[in-house]
Amino acid sequence: MMERLPGFRDFYPEPLPANEPWSCDLRQHIFRCWRETARRYGFREYDGPPLEPLELYTNKSGAEIVAQLFNFTDKGERAVSLRPEMTPTVARMVATAERAYKKPIKWFSLPQLFRYEKQQKGRLREHFQLNCDLFGEADVSADAEIVALLIDVLRSLGLTREDFVIRLSSRQAWQRFFAARGGDAAKAYEFYQVVDKLEREKPEVSAEKFAALGVKLEEVTQFIAASVPEPELQAVLDNLAARGLSDFVKVDYGVIRGLAYYTGIVFEAFDRKGEFRAIAGGGRYDQLVKQVSEGKVDLPALGFGMGDVVLAELLKVRKLVPSFASTVDVVVLIEDETLRADSLKVVQQLREAGKAVDYSLTPAKGDKQFKRALELGATHTIRLERGTDGVVVAKVKNLKTREERTMAAGEVANAPQSS
Amino acid sequence: MMERLPGFRDFYPEPLPANEPWSCDLRQHIFRCWRETARRYGFREYDGPPLEPLELYTNKSGAEIVAQLFNFTDKGERAVSLRPEMTPTVARMVATAERAYKKPIKWFSLPQLFRYEKQQKGRLREHFQLNCDLFGEADVSADAEIVALLIDVLRSLGLTREDFVIRLSSRQAWQRFFAARGGDAAKAYEFYQVVDKLEREKPEVSAEKFAALGVKLEEVTQFIAASVPEPELQAVLDNLAARGLSDFVKVDYGVIRGLAYYTGIVFEAFDRKGEFRAIAGGGRYDQLVKQVSEGKVDLPALGFGMGDVVLAELLKVRKLVPSFASTVDVVVLIEDETLRADSLKVVQQLREAGKAVDYSLTPAKGDKQFKRALELGATHTIRLERGTDGVVVAKVKNLKTREERTMAAGEVANAPQSS
Repeated sequence: MMERLPGFRDFYPEPLPANEPWSCDLRQHIFRCWRETARRYGFREYDGPPLEPLELYTNKSGAEIVAQLFNFTDKGERAVSLRPEMTPTVARMVATAERAYKKPIKWFSLPQLFRYEKQQKGRLREHFQLNCDLFGEADVSADAEIVALLIDVLRSLGLTREDFVIRLSSRQAWQRFFAARGGDAAKAYEFYQVVDKLEREKPEVSAEKFAALGVKLEEVTQFIAASVPEPELQAVLDNLAARGLSDFVKVDYGVIRGLAYYTGIVFEAFDRKGEFRAIAGGGRYDQLVKQVSEGKVDLPALGFGMGDVVLAELLKVRKLVPSFASTVDVVVLIEDETLRADSLKVVQQLREAGKAVDYSLTPAKGDKQFKRALELGATHTIRLERGTDGVVVAKVKNLKTREERTMAAGEVANAPQSS
Repeated sequence: MMERLPGFRDFYPEPLPANEPWSCDLRQHIFRCWRETARRYGFREYDGPPLEPLELYTNKSGAEIVAQLFNFTDKGERAVSLRPEMTPTVARMVATAERAYKKPIKWFSLPQLFRYEKQQKGRLREHFQLNCDLFGEADVSADAEIVALLIDVLRSLGLTREDFVIRLSSRQAWQRFFAARGGDAAKAYEFYQVVDKLEREKPEVSAEKFAALGVKLEEVTQFIAASVPEPELQAVLDNLAARGLSDFVKVDYGVIRGLAYYTGIVFEAFDRKGEFRAIAGGGRYDQLVKQVSEGKVDLPALGFGMGDVVLAELLKVRKLVPSFASTVDVVVLIEDETLRADSLKVVQQLREAGKAVDYSLTPAKGDKQFKRALELGATHTIRLERGTDGVVVAKVKNLKTREERTMAAGEVANAPQSS
């Protein structure tokens, strides 16, 4: 039997089949929380193409990134790639159309992203990612707004201060650290990458790499251990304190972010127990719009991305996945086939009143239909019955209380609320 | 400046920039109506990968379809393709996991689909499509349920019986027509394709093609003009009549659908004025699951697809696009910078109460902030003020009535509802 490609996911409705761990219900729950929180912060949704010109990525990150891309040559001889991240796309869109929008521009998107990762057990080649970005505000108040949004996105999913923390850091603090030790400015990004890998690398390997850049490992680890907030970070802390969000953040220079384009404050969200990789990450990238627009548009920018994979795992472990057992409101039982047409009319009326309604498409025993109503998590059943006087009445049963009420068939559309 | 690929769309938030016609707000409005109506019919959401093995499409439709695919060889030497339609994917998913689900399986999805169409003005290479499918029910009651769902999806967007009609037809009726005239069963699909092109082809071309298959054009046109409902179609009509949906359908054998896999009732939705291409189309495909599963799973199936492109154009022409002008509920005005921290607290409280809130990230003149509140379509502004006694109070203004109320700063979270 034909199978899906390795590293790709099918999203099934619950209850999930064996060996199919990805619930479309959970995915849509996450998407709803993402959208709803972005809305509360006044962020507007956008989307771009999942396929982009290859140079959108190579220009920014250099040719070595191609090894990790789903890139190919299309039938028009264009070098193209499935998008590995959203930031270049949104920078392109903003650079193209920023004049149509008041600043700051506050946008979000929920793209599916693709990377041709070397195949490992459980390693995926696609994921969904909430991207929230803010353009046109250089002030640190924007950094605080973005971090507050990240915190509230995670809280909207039921996660608390016990569950996660945002580690705040600063590329500029590290730049000053490096410069103060005589570091070559042209090698600053190389230095940041060694810092970025510090937590995953053997100390002697890091020490050697730092030494080659003229820096001592001990100085780096002391700088991280102290993590004294520089003025911009202190302003972010004060801003978040005013909102009552202090417990969700800490300054930690151990975070520096891997991507080249960050220029200011950077941050990552982690689970407090340290069981998972980063839940989300982001920062300020004030040069990218200028770069993507070849100098035509210059807008300060910042944002974050949050993937669905680590997040879904964390929600499962913390038991924050809601039940998706109830899929309909009402099941219309058709026990008398001579009343099928009348029952269809009731089905239609209920659906037009906004109810999710199911019924048996073909004749079935009454107890089987009733059992199905329970399985579907319906709150009510409705069945039509012809009285001895020939008049058709509706029996509306509340499945919680098991109370049954009788009413005229034409009156059922609003009955499930009131009974 | 770097541009997106030809035939792909950026979706911008409103108000739209010049030359960018695709509104993400309108797209999300359409998606919400699609999801909400599918939910009312008890359909469950699923999704599959946008990239699939190439043979998923070539096995079903033959090698000639490759010319229209975004296909390539990936870094693992796999022949892969961006999905051109969703039906093969859902047939694969159902064939894999059907045992975990009670029948009938009622699923929907909102995939983005890709075709490498020859480049023409305005011709797109991607679109979004609502796919609704039902598996495991051979009875014609399922066909009626799917057609009713299609009708109600269009109605949920504000379209009425004046705007659209579903043209119902039957592959079996055509099969009998062809067989009765001595048609070669092996050439039935070839015959269907000539019928499918009839409305777009010159009569003499169609006549010649029919003649080669042993059929007279006049017989075909008479058969279509009469469009006498065969028994299955009559059952669908009766079923829809019971729901009060008769005005939305008509039998019209001029519809036959282009794809090879249909086996029974087929249908297309059209605008009544005939200004647009088909809005949606579908039908029964009882052999596809068996084919995709190489004979392991045999489930009758049917469904429809509805694209976002024709639909969005139709909604615009019929003036059924809602206003997306209001993007926040409340704007917090910060006129006294010494009250910024207190104002941030108010912003946070309002957002935690579910309100969409905006405010100026940096100091700005009061009238400029107020003007921005009007532009954003806020219903209320809130500003903090320090009284002569030093106590901070909140002024809550209803922007419709222009009434302003004064209250304690801590009480504003629920004020916008009640004022």
